Amino acid sequence: MPIPAPVLAPPFHVVRLNHVVLTVTDLAAARAFWSDTLGLQVTGESEDRLYLRAMEERGHHCVVLERGGAPGARVLGFKVYAEEDLDRAEAFFRARGLPAAFAEVPHQGRTLRTSDPLGVPLEFYFAMEKLPSIHQAYALYRGVKPLRIDHFNCFSDDVDASVAFYTAIGFRTTEYTENEDRTRLWAAWMHRKGGVHDMAFTHGVGPRLHHVAFWVPTPMAIIDLLDLMATTGYVGNIERGPGRHGISNAFFLYVRDPDGHRIELYCSDYQTIDPDHEPIRWDLRDPRRQTLWGAPAPRTWFEEGTAFAGTPARAPSYQASPIIAA
Amino acid sequence: MPIPAPVLAPPFHVVRLNHVVLTVTDLAAARAFWSDTLGLQVTGESEDRLYLRAMEERGHHCVVLERGGAPGARVLGFKVYAEEDLDRAEAFFRARGLPAAFAEVPHQGRTLRTSDPLGVPLEFYFAMEKLPSIHQAYALYRGVKPLRIDHFNCFSDDVDASVAFYTAIGFRTTEYTENEDRTRLWAAWMHRKGGVHDMAFTHGVGPRLHHVAFWVPTPMAIIDLLDLMATTGYVGNIERGPGRHGISNAFFLYVRDPDGHRIELYCSDYQTIDPDHEPIRWDLRDPRRQTLWGAPAPRTWFEEGTAFAGTPARAPSYQASPIIAA
Amino acid sequence: MPIPAPVLAPPFHVVRLNHVVLTVTDLAAARAFWSDTLGLQVTGESEDRLYLRAMEERGHHCVVLERGGAPGARVLGFKVYAEEDLDRAEAFFRARGLPAAFAEVPHQGRTLRTSDPLGVPLEFYFAMEKLPSIHQAYALYRGVKPLRIDHFNCFSDDVDASVAFYTAIGFRTTEYTENEDRTRLWAAWMHRKGGVHDMAFTHGVGPRLHHVAFWVPTPMAIIDLLDLMATTGYVGNIERGPGRHGISNAFFLYVRDPDGHRIELYCSDYQTIDPDHEPIRWDLRDPRRQTLWGAPAPRTWFEEGTAFAGTPARAPSYQASPIIAA
Amino acid sequence: MPIPAPVLAPPFHVVRLNHVVLTVTDLAAARAFWSDTLGLQVTGESEDRLYLRAMEERGHHCVVLERGGAPGARVLGFKVYAEEDLDRAEAFFRARGLPAAFAEVPHQGRTLRTSDPLGVPLEFYFAMEKLPSIHQAYALYRGVKPLRIDHFNCFSDDVDASVAFYTAIGFRTTEYTENEDRTRLWAAWMHRKGGVHDMAFTHGVGPRLHHVAFWVPTPMAIIDLLDLMATTGYVGNIERGPGRHGISNAFFLYVRDPDGHRIELYCSDYQTIDPDHEPIRWDLRDPRRQTLWGAPAPRTWFEEGTAFAGTPARAPSYQASPIIAA
Repeated sequence: MPIPAPVLAPPFHVVRLNHVVLTVTDLAAARAFWSDTLGLQVTGESEDRLYLRAMEERGHHCVVLERGGAPGARVLGFKVYAEEDLDRAEAFFRARGLPAAFAEVPHQGRTLRTSDPLGVPLEFYFAMEKLPSIHQAYALYRGVKPLRIDHFNCFSDDVDASVAFYTAIGFRTTEYTENEDRTRLWAAWMHRKGGVHDMAFTHGVGPRLHHVAFWVPTPMAIIDLLDLMATTGYVGNIERGPGRHGISNAFFLYVRDPDGHRIELYCSDYQTIDPDHEPIRWDLRDPRRQTLWGAPAPRTWFEEGTAFAGTPARAPSYQASPIIAA
Repeated sequence: MPIPAPVLAPPFHVVRLNHVVLTVTDLAAARAFWSDTLGLQVTGESEDRLYLRAMEERGHHCVVLERGGAPGARVLGFKVYAEEDLDRAEAFFRARGLPAAFAEVPHQGRTLRTSDPLGVPLEFYFAMEKLPSIHQAYALYRGVKPLRIDHFNCFSDDVDASVAFYTAIGFRTTEYTENEDRTRLWAAWMHRKGGVHDMAFTHGVGPRLHHVAFWVPTPMAIIDLLDLMATTGYVGNIERGPGRHGISNAFFLYVRDPDGHRIELYCSDYQTIDPDHEPIRWDLRDPRRQTLWGAPAPRTWFEEGTAFAGTPARAPSYQASPIIAA
Repeated sequence: MPIPAPVLAPPFHVVRLNHVVLTVTDLAAARAFWSDTLGLQVTGESEDRLYLRAMEERGHHCVVLERGGAPGARVLGFKVYAEEDLDRAEAFFRARGLPAAFAEVPHQGRTLRTSDPLGVPLEFYFAMEKLPSIHQAYALYRGVKPLRIDHFNCFSDDVDASVAFYTAIGFRTTEYTENEDRTRLWAAWMHRKGGVHDMAFTHGVGPRLHHVAFWVPTPMAIIDLLDLMATTGYVGNIERGPGRHGISNAFFLYVRDPDGHRIELYCSDYQTIDPDHEPIRWDLRDPRRQTLWGAPAPRTWFEEGTAFAGTPARAPSYQASPIIAA
Repeated sequence: MPIPAPVLAPPFHVVRLNHVVLTVTDLAAARAFWSDTLGLQVTGESEDRLYLRAMEERGHHCVVLERGGAPGARVLGFKVYAEEDLDRAEAFFRARGLPAAFAEVPHQGRTLRTSDPLGVPLEFYFAMEKLPSIHQAYALYRGVKPLRIDHFNCFSDDVDASVAFYTAIGFRTTEYTENEDRTRLWAAWMHRKGGVHDMAFTHGVGPRLHHVAFWVPTPMAIIDLLDLMATTGYVGNIERGPGRHGISNAFFLYVRDPDGHRIELYCSDYQTIDPDHEPIRWDLRDPRRQTLWGAPAPRTWFEEGTAFAGTPARAPSYQASPIIAA
């Protein structure tokens, strides 16, 4: 089944993903992991909330950690191209019968709260408080030297529906897999910013957040993180990798934070900026699509994810190919 | 002097730079350098012309080498967002009294030939013959493992005028230096594709091509190239580096091809995709702007460049700060 | 159980390991793997034999591949400090009732053929044909850029006996594991040349060769090899890794040649040259001893090895801790 | 002029270099540089003295910084193979009419204080206080991640005499340059521990310490140090590099501490352990001997060094080739 054709004049312009708001049960433990270990910089902190940014970002936050009773993902945030895109977005979501309301959000300008048709909570903003650049403040680099947030990956109980919706708002598919009989999409990687993805969807109990990813400078930064985590009490938080993905060609590592939120450290995918860039189809039976070097992912990686606040996850409406669990 | 405000709705949409056509005096020597040493892949070859692409590119060429009597640069090529952008571009250039004519160009779709107001020969196209992807054909990687063309840098005898023009067609400035009294721009880095630049201008005898740059995977690829060139007869072709630029924060090396064309190997600059991304101003007296680590560039680097075919270079209309030659 | 005290004035002086002679069933397939893929340089070739060296070596060979009906390891070769050490070695082995005879070996000077008490076939030599240095012939570097042979690792059915013998001839233990009740050694790493090992022994059906290892420049060379093997038909030959060993602290990868011979690519262990360097004991229950980052080794890695020609392997005389197979 | 033949049975056995004692004028500034910036670990500290070790070392110190009125080098320290080697060394130095006396040195066992015939102050010891290993304490790694002290380099006013002496005590030459007419050595690299050198001598006003070098994991660690120094106020302390030496094939950087002591960060030379390893001769006119990539060293690098306490430096007894200053 072919993926839908890209929409080159979308109803509103998304620039890129920008931030995720996660609920964590212990802010001090979360800070030790996200900031002291991964190396994100703390830009704001209160009793209930921690704001973080990566080294190359000038906006106030790419991750917001909120204290709560149970782990969860509260919202995925995207930046639009201009203030007026927020109004166009509001109209678009309303016309589709989806929730759409402007909210006051600290450190952000006007922010539209909404959700996609499958229930993924989204927010769109144009302006965010800007901070002085620190990309050349090398004394601050530590951990995996995270440079910027790169993408979200979500379980979807209907990948075709997810892809159709994000295509409609201007996302373009770069790589994908299909079900065995090629009638249904199995997974898809979709971008706005010119890399392999801002957002990916994988067949599974959903919607749930599979992971949030950060771009790091080189594979060596990931190896340094592995050495650090293995010798500072976090060996059990290493879930998968290091390896190179067949899909995206990126060098990767997956780790879990103290609440189980999955984080990918990611580098060296490729430029996809051309509007006529053609997506790559992978065969589900090719083991190299997940890890080019052939190593399988652990079962937890296929099954576990973070619930979106207020959105119950559903079993997919069609069966998984048995090959997936192999 | 402030740089001009970005134009968010430009008259036509440029996606990115794509290719350069260079005249070389010895095609065999050029092939030995560009393909066997740097590692670009040959995609077409005749008695008079050599086509090359980098590992991640799917278009037919990013460099065209043409045999000729004297080294020169014939045209800088840019990809537009849609076929209609070519017509909008034609109208734009005609309205400015600049040359604008469609040409038949092998392996490219409809191609608009024109020049900027200072005389830099340009061409714009939307469609190019697509080749199978080779970014995962690792057996083909060699030399510096060039992944994609990254930017052009030109001497300009009037940087303010160059910046004004490219701003008008939608390029956005990311970093710049000014003359000592802050009345004139000294140099500027301008992008379309979301990195530090597709095109940069430096004060000097112009217009001339200062260099064309290729994105490479990591600093280690550049170190490998240095070792290779030093031991295969090309030690004299190494001009400057390796180092890290203050401006762009990229790791770099400059080499010269057998005809003296300057090539930059470049990696790890940063994402600039936000429309409200603020440019960074550097002080001309800060030695770290050129090389963060303080090493000066050689005199040749400030003075030598490639002539644009049919465009005589002019001395700048105002004086260089003496500090530059230090 | 403490490991035996080092013998600082051994009966003869071994400088380091130097070479292995392996039997392969298809020389062309072996050449494609060892030379074209791994990057070892061919220094001699006949219908029945292939000689290889690594980039930094000046001796004629570190690997000899001989055509034969079944895969096997014919001999492990060591260099001694002076010609007279060969005579001292002969006397030593004879006094122990072990075979000891001088043989004519192409490209080598006088060569003593013998075996250790468990049946591992050994040869000692002082002089070998010297070749011009190629460590700065960077155009020849390819594959994993192997710099030198680093160590052998053997299954032993009696690790205590193996360690006692190699200690007697001057090898010093750097790291080790013991059986659960600390009465028997489980594995030991022993060196002459000042790294973590020239020779290691692991509890198992033995004697068999577990692997031969090559020192490579950096982890990036190993990542390059993985990318190359994954896309040139060798994905099934990748057995374990990449990772960092807890024991030795080295970054590693294990691959299998077309005949199943196991090869380790290895870098960044540490200097152990001091005669009073103290060995490190690891707990068998610490998963980080094998891979610092916690990933388990596959079952094949514990069970499969290369038979030594003419030496039947025996089951160990005591039981494995069940924890090992976990 | 051929270098002298190696002495394979020296009068006493040196294992390797171990430490240097330097006088600094401001201990706090020195600590900020050596520990906070380079990344050496503080193992002892008093009002007048700072002890440092590198990450892989288990002995108490590889650098001792003493507070004093003027920068200087007080002694170069070497480890011998056994306690008795100290007595053999004492006899050797006395027989040559050189000073030789045992001294009490904190954290070291019996220590022989002496000097070479040109006046370089030396000390030899066998035992040193051992500290717990920290090579896998990755949370402590910072700066350039120094793994171990690698070598000393000294200006000598008579390189032939220096080489003759160190050859007599068992050092072996690995690489060298000669004066233009090949009658005198210009520089030589000599080792005990199996790398390119523990000790090197260069023609110049001597004896003076040219630099002390530390082994670091990869070229990337050196690039990280450059970025750090350039942005923490130390850009003026970067003297030469990064680059690859022709001689030694090592990747290098030279920096100066706040008192002007020169430090080399160094990695990836090669194994020289074989007693019949043949030295490499370089032509003084080959620019690649200093930097394989052709870049010249600055004048300071040829002229400045650290005085040895109590040893006046002398002009060389023969003239430098004019080519050197080029």
